[in-house]
Amino acid sequence: MSESLQQLLAGWQPGHALPGGLYGNPHTYERELDAIFLKSWLCIGHVSQVPRVGDYFLFDIARESVIVVRGGEGSVNALLNVCRHRGSRVCDEATGHETRLVCRYHGWSYGLDGTLRAAARMPGDFDRSRHGLRRLQARVFAGLIFVNFAPEPPDFSVIERDLAAPLAPYQLDRAKVAHRQTYAIDSDWKLAVENYCECYHCQPAHPEYSVGHSHALSPQEEAAMLGPVKARAAQAGLTDIFYVRNSWLAAGQLGTDRGYKRYALMRGHKTGSRDGGQLAPFLGSIRDFDGGATDLHFGPMMFGLAYCDHVVLYRFTPRGPRNTDCEILWLVNGEAQEGRDYQLRDLIWLWDVTTVADKRIIERNQAGVDSRYYRPGPMSEMEEFTQRFLEWYVATLRATGA
Amino acid sequence: MSESLQQLLAGWQPGHALPGGLYGNPHTYERELDAIFLKSWLCIGHVSQVPRVGDYFLFDIARESVIVVRGGEGSVNALLNVCRHRGSRVCDEATGHETRLVCRYHGWSYGLDGTLRAAARMPGDFDRSRHGLRRLQARVFAGLIFVNFAPEPPDFSVIERDLAAPLAPYQLDRAKVAHRQTYAIDSDWKLAVENYCECYHCQPAHPEYSVGHSHALSPQEEAAMLGPVKARAAQAGLTDIFYVRNSWLAAGQLGTDRGYKRYALMRGHKTGSRDGGQLAPFLGSIRDFDGGATDLHFGPMMFGLAYCDHVVLYRFTPRGPRNTDCEILWLVNGEAQEGRDYQLRDLIWLWDVTTVADKRIIERNQAGVDSRYYRPGPMSEMEEFTQRFLEWYVATLRATGA
Amino acid sequence: MSESLQQLLAGWQPGHALPGGLYGNPHTYERELDAIFLKSWLCIGHVSQVPRVGDYFLFDIARESVIVVRGGEGSVNALLNVCRHRGSRVCDEATGHETRLVCRYHGWSYGLDGTLRAAARMPGDFDRSRHGLRRLQARVFAGLIFVNFAPEPPDFSVIERDLAAPLAPYQLDRAKVAHRQTYAIDSDWKLAVENYCECYHCQPAHPEYSVGHSHALSPQEEAAMLGPVKARAAQAGLTDIFYVRNSWLAAGQLGTDRGYKRYALMRGHKTGSRDGGQLAPFLGSIRDFDGGATDLHFGPMMFGLAYCDHVVLYRFTPRGPRNTDCEILWLVNGEAQEGRDYQLRDLIWLWDVTTVADKRIIERNQAGVDSRYYRPGPMSEMEEFTQRFLEWYVATLRATGA
Repeated sequence: MSESLQQLLAGWQPGHALPGGLYGNPHTYERELDAIFLKSWLCIGHVSQVPRVGDYFLFDIARESVIVVRGGEGSVNALLNVCRHRGSRVCDEATGHETRLVCRYHGWSYGLDGTLRAAARMPGDFDRSRHGLRRLQARVFAGLIFVNFAPEPPDFSVIERDLAAPLAPYQLDRAKVAHRQTYAIDSDWKLAVENYCECYHCQPAHPEYSVGHSHALSPQEEAAMLGPVKARAAQAGLTDIFYVRNSWLAAGQLGTDRGYKRYALMRGHKTGSRDGGQLAPFLGSIRDFDGGATDLHFGPMMFGLAYCDHVVLYRFTPRGPRNTDCEILWLVNGEAQEGRDYQLRDLIWLWDVTTVADKRIIERNQAGVDSRYYRPGPMSEMEEFTQRFLEWYVATLRATGA
Repeated sequence: MSESLQQLLAGWQPGHALPGGLYGNPHTYERELDAIFLKSWLCIGHVSQVPRVGDYFLFDIARESVIVVRGGEGSVNALLNVCRHRGSRVCDEATGHETRLVCRYHGWSYGLDGTLRAAARMPGDFDRSRHGLRRLQARVFAGLIFVNFAPEPPDFSVIERDLAAPLAPYQLDRAKVAHRQTYAIDSDWKLAVENYCECYHCQPAHPEYSVGHSHALSPQEEAAMLGPVKARAAQAGLTDIFYVRNSWLAAGQLGTDRGYKRYALMRGHKTGSRDGGQLAPFLGSIRDFDGGATDLHFGPMMFGLAYCDHVVLYRFTPRGPRNTDCEILWLVNGEAQEGRDYQLRDLIWLWDVTTVADKRIIERNQAGVDSRYYRPGPMSEMEEFTQRFLEWYVATLRATGA
Repeated sequence: MSESLQQLLAGWQPGHALPGGLYGNPHTYERELDAIFLKSWLCIGHVSQVPRVGDYFLFDIARESVIVVRGGEGSVNALLNVCRHRGSRVCDEATGHETRLVCRYHGWSYGLDGTLRAAARMPGDFDRSRHGLRRLQARVFAGLIFVNFAPEPPDFSVIERDLAAPLAPYQLDRAKVAHRQTYAIDSDWKLAVENYCECYHCQPAHPEYSVGHSHALSPQEEAAMLGPVKARAAQAGLTDIFYVRNSWLAAGQLGTDRGYKRYALMRGHKTGSRDGGQLAPFLGSIRDFDGGATDLHFGPMMFGLAYCDHVVLYRFTPRGPRNTDCEILWLVNGEAQEGRDYQLRDLIWLWDVTTVADKRIIERNQAGVDSRYYRPGPMSEMEEFTQRFLEWYVATLRATGA
C-alpha cells in the first residue's frame, strides 16, 4: 500500500527536493530520530543558562527529557530525566535550582552527577551504585553546550579544531543570552532546514534581510563583494579564516557538522539591524565593523549568524512528523545591559520578522508536498547548500537499511 | 486482527446499513478517496463566485487544494495548488483576484491557465513548458462548476443530456449565491449521505420540514399528491419532466450521477419557508408556483432541492475518516436584492434548522456504529434510496479489489 | 520494528514495573479492553442514582455506551445504547428519566427492559422480538451496581459471599452519593492503578493522608497498630472480619476481585478528615469510631476506603491508551443532610487534594516511561500489592495469546 522508507529514498533525484512520502511521514520520523537526532552532537544551550552549581534546565527531544545541570568543578552534566525506580520524570520545571535531584514520586534522591544517594525501604541487597540516572555525553565549546545520546558518540574534537580559531574573537563563552524565542512550525523538520539552507527565497520573501545581506544575491555577486571585508578583518580584530564548511557529508562523521562562512553586508549596513546601524557593544575582542557577517553551523541542527555586535543562533528540534520548533537565541556581550547598551526590540527585529515569514512559507510548503500530485522540481544554483543537506539526509537514512 | 476492506464489504447484507468496521475506518477512508472522490465529477461551486478574469477560489478535498480561476474567454480553469519547483502551495487565501499566480516562496510565476511564465536563476536547460501547474478537467453546466481529478474522467455529457431540459426554466447560470454555510459533522461521510438519502427520519426528527413536504409521507401517499402539481407545471413555466434518477449504479459510469425528482408540497405551501409563503422572486423563466419541489442530484456528492423561488444545494466533502463537511449554498434569482426582494434570515431558516438537527443525528449514529455490538438492522421502504447508495458504495469499493 | 504484545510481556521481570512498551501502547490497549474490561464485573454506580422506575444514567467504557435504567419491580437493567435499526445512540443525556427509550433518529421505541415495542412502516415479516436492545448482565450488591459485558460472566456470588458480612454494618444500600467528581489523568490506566495500589509514595507525596493513616507506615509498623482497633470493633458495631483479599490472581476467576482490609488510623484521627474529627453521621448500624479505616476492592477497577462516617469509592476507567478517568464517589448515610449533618467541602477535602496530587504524579510517570531509556527498577516491600496487580496483569494478557 505505502512505499517503504528505502523505496522512497531510492525515488529521490539529486538536485530535487524529496519525494512527498518522505515529508510528514510518522514511520520515517521514527527512523530519523534514531538515525540522526539520537546520534548527533546537539547544541542545546549556552553556559550562561546554568551559572551556579545546581542550576539546571530541561532539554526535550524525541520524547526524551534531559536534565542539563551545572555540577561540581564547573562541569555541565546531562542526565536522563527518568527515575531508575519506576520511571517517573525527576524534574518538572523547565528551569530550576536543586542541590539534590529528588524524584517526587517515591523520594529517590540523586546527586548532581546522577548517582543515587538515597532510596527508602529497599531490600538489603539493593545496589544503589547500579541505579544512577543515565548520563549523556556532554561537551562545552565556545560557551555552547552540546549533548549526544549515543553511548559512543562521534569525535567532538573536530568541531573544536575547525571552529576554535575563527570563533575566538567573539568570546562566546563570555556572552549572554539577551533573548530567546521559540517558533512552532507545523511542518516536517526537513522542510524547515531546507528553507534555512538556501537564500533563493530571500529576494521574494524577505525584503528586510535582502536589503542588508549580500547572501541574497547570486553566488557570483556575493563573492565579488567579499574583497573589502577581507581587507578590514585584521583591523576589526577578526581572523583571516573566512570559510570552513565541513557540513553534511563533508563532516566526515555523522553529527559533527561545523561551518563558518563570512560574507559581505550591503553598503551602509554594519550589522543585521533595521537601519544598518550598530545594535550592541562589540563582542569579545572585536574592535570594529568589517562589513561582514558569518553563517555558522554546529551540528547538524544548530545554525547561526555572527555579526560583530551580536550572534543569532537557530536550533531546529523535531516535535513530531509534522511539527518542528525553531528556537532562536540572541547572544550579546556579557557586559552589555539592556536599555543602556542595546534595545531588545531593535536587537531581535530582523530575525523575528524573518522567522515569522519563514514559518508561514514552510507551512505552505508542507501543505503542498502533502499532495498526491506533488512532483519535486529542479533546484536553482542558489539552493546548493539545500542540495547538500538532502544528499546527506538520503545517504544517512539509506545507511540504516531500515 | 482487523478485517480487510474486502472482508468487511463481503459482510454487508443488502437492505441493511454497512458493517460497523466500514464507518470511521482510516484505511477504508483512503481507499474511498482514491476510488470515489478522485474519480467522480465533483460539483464545487457556482460561476457567480468567479465573475471576472483572475477571480479565484480554492477548493479543498482529500488533502488536495485546487485553484478554481476564471481564465480568458470565459473559461474556468481548475489548477492544482502545488508549485512545480519545491511543492509549495501557490495561493493562500480562500478567494482572491490575481493576474498571475505567483508562488510566494521562490517567486515562480504562472499564468491563469497554469503555464509557467517566469522562474529566476534556473539553469540554461530548464524547460518552462514542462513545469506548468497541473490542470484538472473542469466543466460548467447550468452555472455549476464541476471538476474531476482523473486524467480520463467519465463522460460528463450524460449529466447535461439528462438535466438540461428539466433545469432550463430555473436558469441557474443567471442565479446568484445568496448565502453559503458549512456544517462540520463529526462522522464518516457515508453516514451523512445515508441520512440525506432517506426521509424515514423526517417525521420523528424534522417537524419543520415534514409540515410542508409530501416527501416525509410514505411513497404511496407522496405519489397520490403529485397529480395537481403535474397539472400546473406548464402554466408555471416548468417542464413536463418529473423524474430522472440516473443515480448510483443507475448512473452507468462512476461519478456521473444525475437526478431530478419533483414531488408535491403540502397544502398551503408554495416553497420551503416557515409559513409556506414565497421567499424570493421566481427563478429564471418560472412564472408561478406549481405546488412542487425537486430533489436534485449531481454527482455523486452534491444534492439539492429546487423550489420555484430558490434552490438549495448540499455538498458533502469528507475531511477525515470521521469528519465530513456539509456545505449549503442558497441560490436566488441573480436580479434579486437582499432586503428588498428576500430576507436572508427567512430564506435560510428551514434548511439551517434541519441541517443542525441532522448534524446531531448523524453524530449519534457514528457513536452508535462504533460499538462492537452494533449489528445493522433491516431498513424500511422509506429508505430505498439509501439502500441504492449502499449498493453502489459496496460495488464501487469491491471493484477496486483493494 | 516494534515488539509484539507477547514479547513485551515476556520481558517483564517480577518485582519490577512493566517494560515501557506496555504503557500507552494503542495495540496493547485494544487487547486490554477485550481481555479485561469487557470480561470483568465493573462496579459502575450506586442504586441511589436511579431511585424511580424510568430513571437512567449512561455508563461509557471502551467506546461502548450502556443505559443503566431502573425497570419494573426494582430491577436495574443495563442495555446497550445502540439502536437495532441503523445503530444510532438511543439515549443522549448523561442522566434522565423516560417511560420508553425512543431512538430520535427513526423513532424506534423500546421498553425499559430493552424489548422493541414499536417501529413504523417496517415490512410485514419484520420480527420485533428479535430486535430488542442488547442486555448486559447486571447485579446489585450492597447498593452498588455491577455490570459485565461477557455473555457468560464469571460467578458474581463469590463477591457477595466474601464481602456481605464485613460490609453489613455500613448498610451501603441505604447510603447516598454526597458528591462525585472525575479526575482526567493523561496516562495509561495501569499507571493509575499501580499508584493506587501502593503507599510507598504516601510519605513523600501525600502529607495530608500520611498524618492520619497508618497505611503510610511500613507493613510492620502498620500491623503493630491494629490491636486497639480490633479491640474496639464489636463495641463500635463493626464485624470481627479484618482481612479479605481475594484480589488479582487470588480472585480465582477474572474480574471477581474482592477485598476488605482494615487498618489503624493515627492517634487523634477518627476518620479521613483534615483535623481528624468526625465528618458525617455514622453509616448504617455503626455506633462509634473504632480508630480504623478499610481498604476496599470490588473488581477489578473499583477501589474504596470505608470510614465509620463515610465511604470513598474510586473507579478507574480507561479512556484511551494514555487517558484514564478516576471517578470518586463520596457516600454518606442516606438520612444525612448537607449543611446540617455534613459540610461537603470538609467531606471531600482529603481525597480531592490527594487525587489532584496523584494525577500529577501519574502523568510524570507516563512521561518518564515513554523514554527509550527507561528500565523498570526493583520495587520495595511497600509496593507488594502493586506487584500482585502486575503479576495478574501479565498472566491475564499472556493467557489471551494475542
